[in-house]
Amino acid sequence: MSNMQKTLIALLGVAVIFFSFVAVRVGVKPAATVKASPIPAGEYDAAVWGKVYPLQYESYRRMAEVAPSPTGYGGSVNVQKSDMQPEIFTNFKGMPFSKDYTEDRGHVYAVEDLLHSKRIGPASKGACITCKTPYVEQFYKEAGWGYANKPLGELLERSKHPVTCAQCHDSETMNLRVINPAFIEAQERRGIDLSKATREEMRTYVCAQCHSEYYFEPGSMRVVFPWDKGFKPEEMYTYYAEKPNNFLQDWEHPDSKAPMLKAQHPDYETFANGTHGKAGVSCADCHMPYMRKDGQKYTSHFITSPLKTLDASCSPCHSQGTEWLSERVKTIQDQTFLLQHTAGLNVAKAHEAIRKAGDTPNVNQAELAKARELVRKAQWMWDIVSAENSMGFHNTDQTMTTLGQANELAHQAIESANLAAGINVL
Amino acid sequence: MSNMQKTLIALLGVAVIFFSFVAVRVGVKPAATVKASPIPAGEYDAAVWGKVYPLQYESYRRMAEVAPSPTGYGGSVNVQKSDMQPEIFTNFKGMPFSKDYTEDRGHVYAVEDLLHSKRIGPASKGACITCKTPYVEQFYKEAGWGYANKPLGELLERSKHPVTCAQCHDSETMNLRVINPAFIEAQERRGIDLSKATREEMRTYVCAQCHSEYYFEPGSMRVVFPWDKGFKPEEMYTYYAEKPNNFLQDWEHPDSKAPMLKAQHPDYETFANGTHGKAGVSCADCHMPYMRKDGQKYTSHFITSPLKTLDASCSPCHSQGTEWLSERVKTIQDQTFLLQHTAGLNVAKAHEAIRKAGDTPNVNQAELAKARELVRKAQWMWDIVSAENSMGFHNTDQTMTTLGQANELAHQAIESANLAAGINVL
Repeated sequence: MSNMQKTLIALLGVAVIFFSFVAVRVGVKPAATVKASPIPAGEYDAAVWGKVYPLQYESYRRMAEVAPSPTGYGGSVNVQKSDMQPEIFTNFKGMPFSKDYTEDRGHVYAVEDLLHSKRIGPASKGACITCKTPYVEQFYKEAGWGYANKPLGELLERSKHPVTCAQCHDSETMNLRVINPAFIEAQERRGIDLSKATREEMRTYVCAQCHSEYYFEPGSMRVVFPWDKGFKPEEMYTYYAEKPNNFLQDWEHPDSKAPMLKAQHPDYETFANGTHGKAGVSCADCHMPYMRKDGQKYTSHFITSPLKTLDASCSPCHSQGTEWLSERVKTIQDQTFLLQHTAGLNVAKAHEAIRKAGDTPNVNQAELAKARELVRKAQWMWDIVSAENSMGFHNTDQTMTTLGQANELAHQAIESANLAAGINVL
Repeated sequence: MSNMQKTLIALLGVAVIFFSFVAVRVGVKPAATVKASPIPAGEYDAAVWGKVYPLQYESYRRMAEVAPSPTGYGGSVNVQKSDMQPEIFTNFKGMPFSKDYTEDRGHVYAVEDLLHSKRIGPASKGACITCKTPYVEQFYKEAGWGYANKPLGELLERSKHPVTCAQCHDSETMNLRVINPAFIEAQERRGIDLSKATREEMRTYVCAQCHSEYYFEPGSMRVVFPWDKGFKPEEMYTYYAEKPNNFLQDWEHPDSKAPMLKAQHPDYETFANGTHGKAGVSCADCHMPYMRKDGQKYTSHFITSPLKTLDASCSPCHSQGTEWLSERVKTIQDQTFLLQHTAGLNVAKAHEAIRKAGDTPNVNQAELAKARELVRKAQWMWDIVSAENSMGFHNTDQTMTTLGQANELAHQAIESANLAAGINVL
């Protein structure tokens, strides 16, 4: 190295130190100290937060990308699920999910996609807004659960932003928080004091507040999580089954006349009982991995399939390389889909068999009722998996077992329908 | 510490050093140098090897322990599998496994348990001895595959020892080796040159040479592994299905008259496609963990369920603690058993339905043949899992999917039987 070079490097060093001081003096603070920047409580616009947290915001905006899933299941494209599973038309006949059941797009589309959903109409209630926007915080403050029974249109009009920062963060402290009152109440009933949750627990709870099975309480439209007996499909089914007079019948199937339930995305319950959940991994560990840009570490807010961030999401624990990891996921998902599709088709067949049995003169009513109960449960076991977003990955053994049970129950329903119609099967 | 104590400790130190020298002089060599000790080729008595390798032998002898499995599945007790799965009586009707189908005890009982099995008789052939004793090395050297067609009784008489050290070790170098000619041939057909296998691969191959699906070639009784199309249940089924004229029909079921196959313990094939196998874990990593005694490290030769050595077997990779680990295994096995039992019962039901259809006047023969093909495949998919020794653990997703398919095929067989009998099911 020449003397000239050495001198240049030394001068450069001095310049860096000098301009660093200037930067601090004029207020360009390093990221670690920006935490105190005031974002007003009730600020639901991600762009405002993004001025203070540019890296997080930049990754959050990536949720606007509309892309299929690398394995062919899920993905942030609003294609109809019935494209791959036409049994959806039969199984949800007589209720809105037979008309419109798309894959979900990213959080940034939460309000827009609700607005355009064919599942809502003038009679839809405010309860539907619960997980779509942080404005639910205001609605609940103003009216308690009363908001759930207001016209959805009225609340939609006031919901200027979809799922954004305030859904999970306190604007003053940046601490993680949950705002869905249904989640808070359900955890209270389970004896879980959220104020004592660890940060790692909160990194799951912020997701769990919405990625969970729920129902609207008939009459009040209050959102309730059916967790009082446990998280397993069987336990939630028992919760519903023990309510009097089919109080929780979501609709009657027009063919089988069975009192049906519709399951909703139990991502949290499924994951919590699976290997990752039991091992203390949080949702954010995989779906919001730590990233680096220009030496700065930040949490990715591009909340999507970890298949898109395999290395950052999985490699901290699994050293086999992205190709190996993605092949494992693909194997699990392909097999799960096979079982799911088989069970779904047989549930559809059961509705049809029960319809025919119901039309038979002198049908055995007791056996027919049994067939309806069997198809109700079969469909629940199929739906609680189909409605979940991981195609078996969140809890492979439980998911596959549930689908095995769904298929068996569907066949039992068909046999029962035959018996009800007086057909002596071999 | 008093001066007296210090003096005593110093004296003790001198004594330890002195007696160490004496020990070396009189020939008590440390274990690291005993490798050269000559064990003659063809020495099949573990006790002789045990004089040179006392720790390995001591652990090997623990296989004499007769104990149930911690999770309730498998275990080294020769109870009848039909105690938990009475469907075995129906599904293996007309062939020896319906009379006697015990859980396997440890390697040390291999010859004894064969001798007392109700599945063998005066007509049994030498092929049965292949995996029971290292004497198979001599038998094959003497007669090639000719040994497989000799009377079993003759070879049993010469087999003075069960599975022992020589099954897997070269007596001179202690290198791992395989001696089952069926395994060597099958790997050759797959393009695998065993002479180039790594030590870690050999730590799986020594087990795989016997813990695999096989059949006896009709006529010659040569042992063949049906691996030419792959390791998956479906691929092995296709291998059999493509042989002409049901050449590989193990027996005809007396009720359904279906041409049946019997599966044998595909532990290796199942594991190889599973998470652990794909991650490069070997059989020995879990079933023969490294142990320490008096500071000396050795490989456990107590080859059994890793549930009995959870800490040594699993903790090198999984840090969650033995209680967590054992709960995960129990969860997987309980669910697998549920699916297995369900499928097994429906396969039994299918045999009965097809029997009744076959007895029907003017039965539709084409449909009846279809029903028989369906029950043949259903039972294969059930049996390839039931005959395996891990109750789903070796490859949970594939096992559960296979059982789901088995159950579905059994129901399809029942439906087909009804159609054949002219019963118009709904």
